[in-house]
Amino acid sequence: MRVLVNNEIVHREDVRIDFEDRGYQFGDGIYEVVRVYEGEAYELNEHIHRFYRSAKEIGITPPQSKNEMKSNIEDVITENKLLEGGIYFQMTRGVAPRKHQYEKEIEPKLIAYPLYFTRPEKQQNEGVSVLTADDLRWHRCDIKSLNLLYNIMMKQKAHDSGSFETIFIRDELVTEGTSTNVFMIKDNVISTHPADNNILNGITRMKVLHLLNEEHIPYEEKSFTKQELLDADEVFITSTTSEVMPVLKVDEQVIGNGLPGILTKRLHSLFLHDIKSPEIVRG
Amino acid sequence: MRVLVNNEIVHREDVRIDFEDRGYQFGDGIYEVVRVYEGEAYELNEHIHRFYRSAKEIGITPPQSKNEMKSNIEDVITENKLLEGGIYFQMTRGVAPRKHQYEKEIEPKLIAYPLYFTRPEKQQNEGVSVLTADDLRWHRCDIKSLNLLYNIMMKQKAHDSGSFETIFIRDELVTEGTSTNVFMIKDNVISTHPADNNILNGITRMKVLHLLNEEHIPYEEKSFTKQELLDADEVFITSTTSEVMPVLKVDEQVIGNGLPGILTKRLHSLFLHDIKSPEIVRG
Repeated sequence: MRVLVNNEIVHREDVRIDFEDRGYQFGDGIYEVVRVYEGEAYELNEHIHRFYRSAKEIGITPPQSKNEMKSNIEDVITENKLLEGGIYFQMTRGVAPRKHQYEKEIEPKLIAYPLYFTRPEKQQNEGVSVLTADDLRWHRCDIKSLNLLYNIMMKQKAHDSGSFETIFIRDELVTEGTSTNVFMIKDNVISTHPADNNILNGITRMKVLHLLNEEHIPYEEKSFTKQELLDADEVFITSTTSEVMPVLKVDEQVIGNGLPGILTKRLHSLFLHDIKSPEIVRG
Repeated sequence: MRVLVNNEIVHREDVRIDFEDRGYQFGDGIYEVVRVYEGEAYELNEHIHRFYRSAKEIGITPPQSKNEMKSNIEDVITENKLLEGGIYFQMTRGVAPRKHQYEKEIEPKLIAYPLYFTRPEKQQNEGVSVLTADDLRWHRCDIKSLNLLYNIMMKQKAHDSGSFETIFIRDELVTEGTSTNVFMIKDNVISTHPADNNILNGITRMKVLHLLNEEHIPYEEKSFTKQELLDADEVFITSTTSEVMPVLKVDEQVIGNGLPGILTKRLHSLFLHDIKSPEIVRG
């Protein structure tokens, strides 16, 4: 495996991470996972746009321009001859003697490398089950940071029970999944939580909203309760790796008729079509 | 510098951290900072006790026994000939291909190394200023985890304004500082936030409460508002590195008579006395 370290691509075994990297001691950094289809990064501009926004929100200034970043990521794909999967990239604030406050001059550390996975077709065709849990996370979930402890704890809880995902409930309202956005459909109207500080505005989420606009399918960015979710006709979750994933059960309770929803399947088809001929979208 | 890596002490330059260490990608780990006075770790048992509790709460099982851990930390002090400062130690879940859920078998990674610092005597004598900020952190602040992004952002905010610390306010109530516990004194009664899921139960906090008990000084573990804090006769913060630190200003507003409080100073004296002849305390 070849790994990008700052502006250089090196062999995996030559990557050096310092134990005083603030990413390792404070989770002081941000990241993205971009999907690669047939050797092409999908919606790379959007991911890079969000990456720079996250960096800005926590006061990290990437030394690279967005164009350099894009070129870097594309090099990682080429160097690894990656056809199918994704690129994970993260930037930490850099290495410094451990204390909470930091000097502005420290050099951020960029890492990017390939993830090997394929489309989860079986689950997309058959649908998945999810759990719910109280959303105990911080109130800046709009930042795609490395502080993912509660996300992984709740993903693990889902995994241990044979479920695909855990969906968070904050103040009675459904926010998002541990690594997905949540949509429900009732009486042909699609709802999803607004893109505020309590969710990460997913690239796939934005793409789905764009497709809904294109197709003149009614939707609202409006939060809903767990009960409304349970009473929905269809539920689906979205993410870079899951694309549009039908949800058949929430906390063991069957949604709608217990089959992947018709509108959900249509949206996934539209999404798959977009991958072949992507349209530019900016949320 | 000599660094403990799992059960082995190596030179700093020989420490290897993998970029797929879950600590680096998710902040998936826990830590402690123990104070070293005259070559002795202060309240080491208490720190190790809390370390194992934090580990348990996030589902990490340290391969070492508590006694091995204690012996390891003492070896780091000895090998580095550390007389004054602290030992930082952290444990991450280990190295695995990146995904939120984890396999139970992965091997946790322990790192421990010396921090060189001395007692902040000038600030302890003169007192410090603090800011306040909304407590946007997650709801498991009782776990001493590596997810410290909001803590560092708010410590940085204090630092940038020339203040010593930022104190968090959640639902109108004072919880704690970014790396300290907060106490206020009104009419000779000392108050501090109860040790629930919204604060980290500091070792110094527990020691202060123990000393208050010993001295028959009235106190209550009861939360208070920012206004009550501003109206206090004395305010102080506690931590492993700050010990008992007088607070003279909160958000530029002067507390009491604007001088380090009499009871605060007495408590610091009792604390300094305890360092010489520590009593065992378990919160």
